[in-house]
Amino acid sequence: MTFHSSRSIGVDDRGLQYGDGLFETVAVRDGRPLLWDRHLARLLDGCARLAIRLSDPRPLTAEVDARAREAGAGVLKLILTRGAGGRGYGYAPDMTPTIVLTRHPLPDYPAANREQGVAVRWCAMRLSRQPRLAGLKHLNRLEQVLARAEWAQEYAEGLMLDTAGNVIEGTMSNLFVRHGYGWSTPDLGQCGVAGVMRGAVLDLAARLGIEVAIRDLTQEEVMAANGLFLTNSLIGLWPVRELAGRALTVCDTTRRLQEALNAAGYLA
Amino acid sequence: MTFHSSRSIGVDDRGLQYGDGLFETVAVRDGRPLLWDRHLARLLDGCARLAIRLSDPRPLTAEVDARAREAGAGVLKLILTRGAGGRGYGYAPDMTPTIVLTRHPLPDYPAANREQGVAVRWCAMRLSRQPRLAGLKHLNRLEQVLARAEWAQEYAEGLMLDTAGNVIEGTMSNLFVRHGYGWSTPDLGQCGVAGVMRGAVLDLAARLGIEVAIRDLTQEEVMAANGLFLTNSLIGLWPVRELAGRALTVCDTTRRLQEALNAAGYLA
Repeated sequence: MTFHSSRSIGVDDRGLQYGDGLFETVAVRDGRPLLWDRHLARLLDGCARLAIRLSDPRPLTAEVDARAREAGAGVLKLILTRGAGGRGYGYAPDMTPTIVLTRHPLPDYPAANREQGVAVRWCAMRLSRQPRLAGLKHLNRLEQVLARAEWAQEYAEGLMLDTAGNVIEGTMSNLFVRHGYGWSTPDLGQCGVAGVMRGAVLDLAARLGIEVAIRDLTQEEVMAANGLFLTNSLIGLWPVRELAGRALTVCDTTRRLQEALNAAGYLA
Repeated sequence: MTFHSSRSIGVDDRGLQYGDGLFETVAVRDGRPLLWDRHLARLLDGCARLAIRLSDPRPLTAEVDARAREAGAGVLKLILTRGAGGRGYGYAPDMTPTIVLTRHPLPDYPAANREQGVAVRWCAMRLSRQPRLAGLKHLNRLEQVLARAEWAQEYAEGLMLDTAGNVIEGTMSNLFVRHGYGWSTPDLGQCGVAGVMRGAVLDLAARLGIEVAIRDLTQEEVMAANGLFLTNSLIGLWPVRELAGRALTVCDTTRRLQEALNAAGYLA
């Protein structure tokens, strides 16, 4: 693998040419990359599914650890591409992946987002269904770019349906929904990003005896929810206090999960 | 706009970060960029649909002309991204697009491809349906990368269906199909790239009185065709002599269209 500490990348890199790669956005706190094992597992799953040859991940982990120690706190963004070379979709099987690691400050989200919750809208932009790419955090993100362009700052997030009408996720977050006392989160078998924080919440919920069904959800079902929250690696867990003009209350289970994430040291 | 004549691009460019951009692959002959008006029209359509602010395309045309004169013959690849900056899907409306122009030799396809025709296979990889991106030559190309990885060199091209079962295109080319004496080419309203050479062939066909229907086509229909050819800017027009083991003959209309493209000066 090739680490790019420089601020530039070759124009012949397949990351630029075709979005032929993956990324991870890692929160850093106290000099440690939070949930790194989960980030790495998703990255390796992506490499396997895209046939990107990352033979030994240990130097990557060592580099991420070192950068996190340097940074202390903030965000490490990791981009891993198939590598540089050629023109045309075909690639040599022995290409050397390119790895770009960049440091960023934590986004300055209001503390109220985590405490009182956020207002959320529906996006008109739909996600296409592609099982071969579903779950991965790959570099083909035009759908998210177009969805995020639908509003300025009035909402903290926009929820997206797929072209079949299932609610999948927010533009940058995953979604948990409560009906009565039962929780569910969208199935990501056809599209969507399997968020690292989503995985952490599912595991913590199981440990706390909170059942969460992974299933298809319609827009009507989500509008009828009596509880809703969003997750990602940087925001942690944001309760939703308003969905498309409808007020929602933040329930005890949401608070319990937030506290469990905090106690586990998963929150930036 | 920012022209990159250097061989590198900032890692914060949204072309790398999200595939947030477009590209064109332009054949050059006798110092001229072939079908440039059509390439530019598709690029501008893409900019409009992705809200990429390319205010005045004249400097771009001037630059492409100059590079084509320099090159004499070969390929100019143009990548246009939304520009550099930030982390996150949102973007500032006044971003300056990045333009990368690179020179490449013409691929050394055997002359037999154009003369006797090519052998073609079916890809297992399907295209997802996304009307907001359909027709554009954008930088989100993982589906083509995965499809092209299904075979090595035994076939000149692989044909792709979408997830609904419609035949859409080849991994790098468009498709024209003949039944009896009638021609058709897939509708690209849900996915696929609206190739510049496809557009040129449609216009030439109309001028020659050859009707071509733009419509949905099933795999069974394409397997039952009595004529088939592929188009793109670099290959021009390749007749298909074998589709998934089934022999096809090259019909007179295909030859007439090939000659018309040649006479129009569209072939590299």
